[in-house]
Amino acid sequence: VSTKRDPVVVLAPDSFKGSLGASDLCVALEQGVRRVWPQATIRARPMADGGEGTLDAVLAAVGAAATRRTQRVRGAAGRGLDAAFGVIDRDGARTAVIEVAQIVGITDDAGMAVDVEERTTTGVGELIRALLDEGVERFMIGLGGSSTNDGGAGMLNALGLDLVAQDDRPVAPTPRGLANLARVDASKLDARLSRASMTIMSDVSNPLTGPRGATAVFGPQKGVQPDSVSTIDAALARFAHLAEHALARRVSAEPGAGAAGGLGFALQLLGARFASGAEVVAELIALDHALQGADWAITGEGRSDAQTLSGKAPFVVAAHGKRVHVPVSLLSGAIDAGALEAFAMHFAGCFALPAGPMTLEACIADASRLVADRAEQMARLFGAASG
Amino acid sequence: VSTKRDPVVVLAPDSFKGSLGASDLCVALEQGVRRVWPQATIRARPMADGGEGTLDAVLAAVGAAATRRTQRVRGAAGRGLDAAFGVIDRDGARTAVIEVAQIVGITDDAGMAVDVEERTTTGVGELIRALLDEGVERFMIGLGGSSTNDGGAGMLNALGLDLVAQDDRPVAPTPRGLANLARVDASKLDARLSRASMTIMSDVSNPLTGPRGATAVFGPQKGVQPDSVSTIDAALARFAHLAEHALARRVSAEPGAGAAGGLGFALQLLGARFASGAEVVAELIALDHALQGADWAITGEGRSDAQTLSGKAPFVVAAHGKRVHVPVSLLSGAIDAGALEAFAMHFAGCFALPAGPMTLEACIADASRLVADRAEQMARLFGAASG
Repeated sequence: VSTKRDPVVVLAPDSFKGSLGASDLCVALEQGVRRVWPQATIRARPMADGGEGTLDAVLAAVGAAATRRTQRVRGAAGRGLDAAFGVIDRDGARTAVIEVAQIVGITDDAGMAVDVEERTTTGVGELIRALLDEGVERFMIGLGGSSTNDGGAGMLNALGLDLVAQDDRPVAPTPRGLANLARVDASKLDARLSRASMTIMSDVSNPLTGPRGATAVFGPQKGVQPDSVSTIDAALARFAHLAEHALARRVSAEPGAGAAGGLGFALQLLGARFASGAEVVAELIALDHALQGADWAITGEGRSDAQTLSGKAPFVVAAHGKRVHVPVSLLSGAIDAGALEAFAMHFAGCFALPAGPMTLEACIADASRLVADRAEQMARLFGAASG
Repeated sequence: VSTKRDPVVVLAPDSFKGSLGASDLCVALEQGVRRVWPQATIRARPMADGGEGTLDAVLAAVGAAATRRTQRVRGAAGRGLDAAFGVIDRDGARTAVIEVAQIVGITDDAGMAVDVEERTTTGVGELIRALLDEGVERFMIGLGGSSTNDGGAGMLNALGLDLVAQDDRPVAPTPRGLANLARVDASKLDARLSRASMTIMSDVSNPLTGPRGATAVFGPQKGVQPDSVSTIDAALARFAHLAEHALARRVSAEPGAGAAGGLGFALQLLGARFASGAEVVAELIALDHALQGADWAITGEGRSDAQTLSGKAPFVVAAHGKRVHVPVSLLSGAIDAGALEAFAMHFAGCFALPAGPMTLEACIADASRLVADRAEQMARLFGAASG
């Protein structure tokens, strides 16, 4: 319809959880957009929010400078697994991209097979130590999707923090083990950590303990029994108190300390700074560069609601688009009607997958085609309006 | 988003059958569009296709020059009813707008209570006669939604065509009565008909009889039993043969003769010309005038599929928009994915009601809000692209 040159379109969706990954979504979106503008310049930048899919999104965007690798570490149940992670070599510096869900993921059956009170984040510490060994000094750590609730004790333990019982014997770095914790000794903590830069990718703002803490809020979905919440919460509080004392730093009440069963606490104790997962991903994939000079962008996610505006990937894409005056439209699996009014300030139109009455199952089964069809229709309207 | 003046938007949807009328749709669409452009110039032109809703659409668009009236005539079962119709007084000429469904409608319980073989279109003839009495010379007749299958014998009979049995007694102008038809006498046919201009609004192209005829194709949904199809079809064929002979005109094989159980035949026999229902409505509501100088138009219908391009209201709106270079977008309750490729040539984007997985019932129950929400989002995208 447009008589102008074919446009430059940025495609930056988050994954549709349980349906399509962000890279597959970019393929489907491009297919739809090209039906309208075969010669369009498409800049596909799969997004993520620090959770599941973050590693893939970053690796896809960074290209040759990034390597996908695996490392043998312990999973949540203590058994070995090959955990995937990424290393970006850029400007002489090495940055590791870690998804803790690749090590202690809630979708890992072996880890989920043992009681949550026996699960540990030891493997996360093992991976960090191995990367320090090869000179990595910058860590981007996504906290989404963990199965653990150990306050990050396992990670700290693997990095040299000694956890000791009243009888001077080491305690297991698990919720159950921490119940017997008497002393914490930081004298053997890996000294290289002080030179490392660590960024936590997470949108969780809960503190470590208390009624809004990790155990009370996220524990139940990991298997914490209702009558165990207060016991575990008390054990984490005691562990935090001792660990903070040993490292002379107080972070347990900081927002995000309760992320990933308390890994947010342990990483902050090591000096990690919290950052919006989607913002970090946007930086890693050079989203701003892609938006520069673009005519239009499409973002999206499985389901958009009021939470979307709390730093989820589509919100971050919209905010970055706004800065450079690129309109960003939303195409999600579903959009909560109650959020549309708030969305109006951010998105140049919000659209959903179904082309009529349709079940969730049908949407998921046919997601790729539906995405292409919707993107095509959005592009037709965009083209007609700008033509 | 746009920095230009607020746009001129034409809203010309057909009704969403079983959910929202075209006028209500215009209200909901306007609500959504005004959330984006409070000062937009909105030209609401509810559309129709000659079927249900045609009278309302025309009366709404024509305004003060049109009057909604009722006339006591016989319904399909022969019992009296007050049939609604419209009269437009313009340029010294009077045009009647008639929906046959208001007289012999398939939604009229009294008419449906008697067997289809006893139903008659006598009331349609009575209304035309009454209008001729008051000087109306132009008739726009919508044929959608009839319950009758009498070949239009009832209408012709009321207008003076005598239907006679072998024993010289009159036969009833019903499928059952026509089985005994021996002669047709046109000598007392209302002479004023020859001066009247009659336009049939219908998209049906079936002939009167045969395997694609009224009885075989539309009879069953009106209650014709499978084993009666051939008997009734033969009676209509015989009636048509005699009536054509009496009026010295052959129209039974014409496309559309099978519309409204053969009313299409009877009206053509009186010289009526067939026209696309939506095209006639577009003319009556002065759609072209509304589109002149507009920036954008939205049309729609309950469900869009390949049939939409066979002259349905949204297609007609798109075609008229194209002539004056106004992009026309489609917003329907549901859109058949298989039709999207063909729609691409006609519509500036096709959108459906649901904002996520949703049942048909939920769509219908919440149609007004969904329409406003979708129109708003379409307008946001349009504004961003044109701004």
